[in-house]
Amino acid sequence: MITSTSNPQVKNLQQLLKKAKARNEQDVFLAEGIKMYQEAPKEQICKVYITKTLYEEKGPDFLCGLEAEVLSDHVYAAVSDTKTPQGILCVLKQYRYRIPDMMKKENPHLLLLEDLQDPGNLGTIMRTAEGAGVDGIILNRTSVDLYNPKVIRATMGSVYRMPFLYVDELSEVLPVLKEKGIHTYAAHLKGKNCYDQEDYRTGCAFLIGNESSGLSGKLSRKADTWIRIPMHGKLESLNAAVAASILMYEVCRQRR
Amino acid sequence: MITSTSNPQVKNLQQLLKKAKARNEQDVFLAEGIKMYQEAPKEQICKVYITKTLYEEKGPDFLCGLEAEVLSDHVYAAVSDTKTPQGILCVLKQYRYRIPDMMKKENPHLLLLEDLQDPGNLGTIMRTAEGAGVDGIILNRTSVDLYNPKVIRATMGSVYRMPFLYVDELSEVLPVLKEKGIHTYAAHLKGKNCYDQEDYRTGCAFLIGNESSGLSGKLSRKADTWIRIPMHGKLESLNAAVAASILMYEVCRQRR
Repeated sequence: MITSTSNPQVKNLQQLLKKAKARNEQDVFLAEGIKMYQEAPKEQICKVYITKTLYEEKGPDFLCGLEAEVLSDHVYAAVSDTKTPQGILCVLKQYRYRIPDMMKKENPHLLLLEDLQDPGNLGTIMRTAEGAGVDGIILNRTSVDLYNPKVIRATMGSVYRMPFLYVDELSEVLPVLKEKGIHTYAAHLKGKNCYDQEDYRTGCAFLIGNESSGLSGKLSRKADTWIRIPMHGKLESLNAAVAASILMYEVCRQRR
Repeated sequence: MITSTSNPQVKNLQQLLKKAKARNEQDVFLAEGIKMYQEAPKEQICKVYITKTLYEEKGPDFLCGLEAEVLSDHVYAAVSDTKTPQGILCVLKQYRYRIPDMMKKENPHLLLLEDLQDPGNLGTIMRTAEGAGVDGIILNRTSVDLYNPKVIRATMGSVYRMPFLYVDELSEVLPVLKEKGIHTYAAHLKGKNCYDQEDYRTGCAFLIGNESSGLSGKLSRKADTWIRIPMHGKLESLNAAVAASILMYEVCRQRR
């Protein structure tokens, strides 16, 4: 059992928790909590850390034969990202998706996220995307890191199942989509067409921009169609995750 | 200019920031940031606090004749809820809405929130509600405080325009709605009817439950119809703000 916060494994977990660079160098990410542990694909798990309290409560069967390091509760608190830790944390291999992984179904439904910054928004978008049957999420490199522990938590497990990919420039992806017959829609406050007046039953990809500044001119000019979500009242915009969710579920509704 | 964090006004602002009890006793709430200040109805504003830096940058016209207390940047940081404060904060009178304030239009569209706990979710729901043309939000007393600064920030100004009301028991509101011809829909994972197969063009109210446990049996049993939002994948549920947003925008779509 590890009982000191100066243990090298503990030091490393703290780095993995805080730094994208450390996660990328080691090609891993962290997922915390019982649900995130239970849903994790076993072949992705590199290592499990569990508190003495949880281990004693659940017994060895809880780990399903996986090797785990037991931590004192005090040490666990130093590597947890939550205020009330459940007592289990796993280190998992990062995913390596490619565009063909998102093109397995006949009429792909994709999301392209530009400069999304809020971890909660990204996690929520991924969670909703799974619910709406989205086939993949493509992000540009300046978006928030999907392996940020706050994103992972907000995905509620969808990170294990939803293909995603970071690219240098989203604009370079658009010709690839066009070639596959996927129509691109920019969610834009100045969109002429109301989002529910388009036909999303064929392949479609939605471009969602940054929380404060929306989509860049450079990217939105390359989209096939600009759409808007109508708003009553004096509101300037919707939350990015909400806007994405409304669009994804409209696709889902039309395809039923 | 206030230059000490032990100034009684500063101490009071810290209480108002942290404690619902202090806000309720003084019948006020705080709204921070330039946008929140500019959108605030002038008749609701009790007092404005501004940093020396912002005051010198914007000049006296920025305050439109309102009385403001100037704070040193250091003191302002002690009363701000944000990491990068914009330098302006106002104390506003709390609102006093009643059910008739939500019934002014012919076919009211309402939200009933039970035990919602996350401030970001509540703020986002209120923001989307304004966009979707919702007429009012009713919450039970054990939901998060709408005047929590994190909720206020996430509303992006909708708090100034959206009627809302806390009640002891939501179940006591349902007969009042029924009398007004408003149909109540419980958003429930076990709902038989898909949410988009109902007709929302007449008065409707949606019951949304707690983030982890959903709607209580007691309340959902009293709803007229249970509806569900279909989900692909292995997801157990959607985020509460996302679920509410999808429903609100379906009403909006049907009514166009």
